[in-house]
Amino acid sequence: MITIAVDAMGGDMGPEVTIAGSALALKCHSNLRLIFYGVANKVEPILKQHPNLITCPFYATETATAMDEKPSQALRNGRGKSSMWHAIDAVKSGEADACVSAGNTGALMAMSYFCLRMLPEAERPGIAGIWPTIHGESIVLDIGATIGADANQLVDFAVMGAGMFRALYHIRKPSVGLLNIGVEEVKGLEEIRKAAHLLRTIPSEVLEYKGFVEGNDIGKGTVDVVVTEGFVGNIALKTAEGTVQQVSRILNKAMHQSIFSRLGYCLSSGAFRYFRQRLDPRKVNGGVLLGLNGVVVKSHGGTDAEGFASALHVGYEMIKNELLDKIAIDLRHFHEKKPIFTASKDGSG
Amino acid sequence: MITIAVDAMGGDMGPEVTIAGSALALKCHSNLRLIFYGVANKVEPILKQHPNLITCPFYATETATAMDEKPSQALRNGRGKSSMWHAIDAVKSGEADACVSAGNTGALMAMSYFCLRMLPEAERPGIAGIWPTIHGESIVLDIGATIGADANQLVDFAVMGAGMFRALYHIRKPSVGLLNIGVEEVKGLEEIRKAAHLLRTIPSEVLEYKGFVEGNDIGKGTVDVVVTEGFVGNIALKTAEGTVQQVSRILNKAMHQSIFSRLGYCLSSGAFRYFRQRLDPRKVNGGVLLGLNGVVVKSHGGTDAEGFASALHVGYEMIKNELLDKIAIDLRHFHEKKPIFTASKDGSG
Repeated sequence: MITIAVDAMGGDMGPEVTIAGSALALKCHSNLRLIFYGVANKVEPILKQHPNLITCPFYATETATAMDEKPSQALRNGRGKSSMWHAIDAVKSGEADACVSAGNTGALMAMSYFCLRMLPEAERPGIAGIWPTIHGESIVLDIGATIGADANQLVDFAVMGAGMFRALYHIRKPSVGLLNIGVEEVKGLEEIRKAAHLLRTIPSEVLEYKGFVEGNDIGKGTVDVVVTEGFVGNIALKTAEGTVQQVSRILNKAMHQSIFSRLGYCLSSGAFRYFRQRLDPRKVNGGVLLGLNGVVVKSHGGTDAEGFASALHVGYEMIKNELLDKIAIDLRHFHEKKPIFTASKDGSG
Repeated sequence: MITIAVDAMGGDMGPEVTIAGSALALKCHSNLRLIFYGVANKVEPILKQHPNLITCPFYATETATAMDEKPSQALRNGRGKSSMWHAIDAVKSGEADACVSAGNTGALMAMSYFCLRMLPEAERPGIAGIWPTIHGESIVLDIGATIGADANQLVDFAVMGAGMFRALYHIRKPSVGLLNIGVEEVKGLEEIRKAAHLLRTIPSEVLEYKGFVEGNDIGKGTVDVVVTEGFVGNIALKTAEGTVQQVSRILNKAMHQSIFSRLGYCLSSGAFRYFRQRLDPRKVNGGVLLGLNGVVVKSHGGTDAEGFASALHVGYEMIKNELLDKIAIDLRHFHEKKPIFTASKDGSG
């Protein structure tokens, strides 16, 4: 049995979406158990609407973390009180194996860090996002947990991202690339070149280092795991989201320009459905907070029930495939094999 | 009369594209004069194919800068010899008003910097790209001239980008945003917050500062000018390019799935033509090297004749609207009005 703690209050739509999504997820996984945390008068009426959730434990919490609270504020106001805090704390206490929330990302990061602490092998947390590509999906990290990363931290991201990819897609040695502004070895920031040196020289059974990749390689799916620090990763993610919106808007406008294009649009409705599905963020919803001493999945705040179910599925797979234990072993393995663990003096590319 | 020096050898296709594009541009602008630089046996046969170019001066050069030469290598090999160098040098000597090349970006940047030097008012060069948006076009800079930028340099980029937007689109006070990972004042890197403080406090007649923008705001066209440093700008640009390719590939696949979708595709062919045109990089081709003591336009290396003509058009408009003089005045104005010109001690947001 795999138990997931659900922050029922998180997300733009709150319990309406998180509970409907939970009901969907439970239909797919017979050995999944859910625990709900939320404000009673908001959650209970909706829980009652879903017969398959009746046996799930529900814990009433005093508050919910607002979507616009600053991380420090959320931690101060929510510690020991909010649904988000309690859902994370259930992972710490061992009551749940993982936690899923569609709430405020900064708050989730801060509370998880404060409550669960880091894996002893990891230095810095990262948020790993699942990115739809031409061929399927890639994992990109960090998409905004922290700003900046040195060479060792980038290597840790590579190892953790590969572990997550393996857990989700069952590929033995996922390919890994470092995001840079050129593929030549001399290009880009020094810490990225140092990380490249480390990834090239440390023999690994858990990932295959493919060199530098550029921004356009992400959508192409050139590698399974794209590694970058949080500022750049967040800008890249949002730029891609904006571009998909932009392209869809222009396409929509184009298809309604004339009677012919409208007729064509009707005839091609199946094709457009396929097109939208392939780009549907709900299908690949779920950023995972990596490096922490527990599995915490962040669902997109604006998602619907199907999207939230998909985030629960990600949490489920992480636990089923023993992500944390494996990541800890992989990180230890990498750290032991590092020539000398002082990348700052080492490997200028 | 406006004179542009054309590096006829640059680009993936070389003279075939640059010369055909030049012939196109000349048809649009009656007061445009072109000077060609290139290797004689490559350029002369193609020049002869275009009757309207017969009177244009052509200077034979010893070499051409290869697309894969490193900047330092290109400078060493090309100085005083290559078509790229001579085209830039024509701007320095005053023989031409601007230079356009579809060649190696790093080499063009290095040679332009070496040959033309900086405007006394600017500290660091930037490449400004024209970005298609839902509403029209925005300018994004720096998209890869240099890595990193402090607060003062970001402010300079804002002023120069606004100057370029004004020259191209005739908007008196273009709106400017700083690219960041959140719109709240406390977010992001310190230098970006400092730049925000400067842009907020310095009264300006030449730009309207709108605050932070995120990656998804670029495609939306939230502001006319998006300011960032070169590493992030380059990753954002290439991520967007990759996303457009990805979306187009998926759409194409969708439209060929069934007989109905294919029929629909035929009926909507006009709509798809409009769609492709709106996303056509050739229509907005031309990155401008800003901050230098001369106008240098970089055309996309993989463009066709129409795209190269569009880069020539950008160069033409920059000169016609006296971009350099205006940018110099605007920068001086900003520097004079800065409270104290030590942003590092100032304005932590």
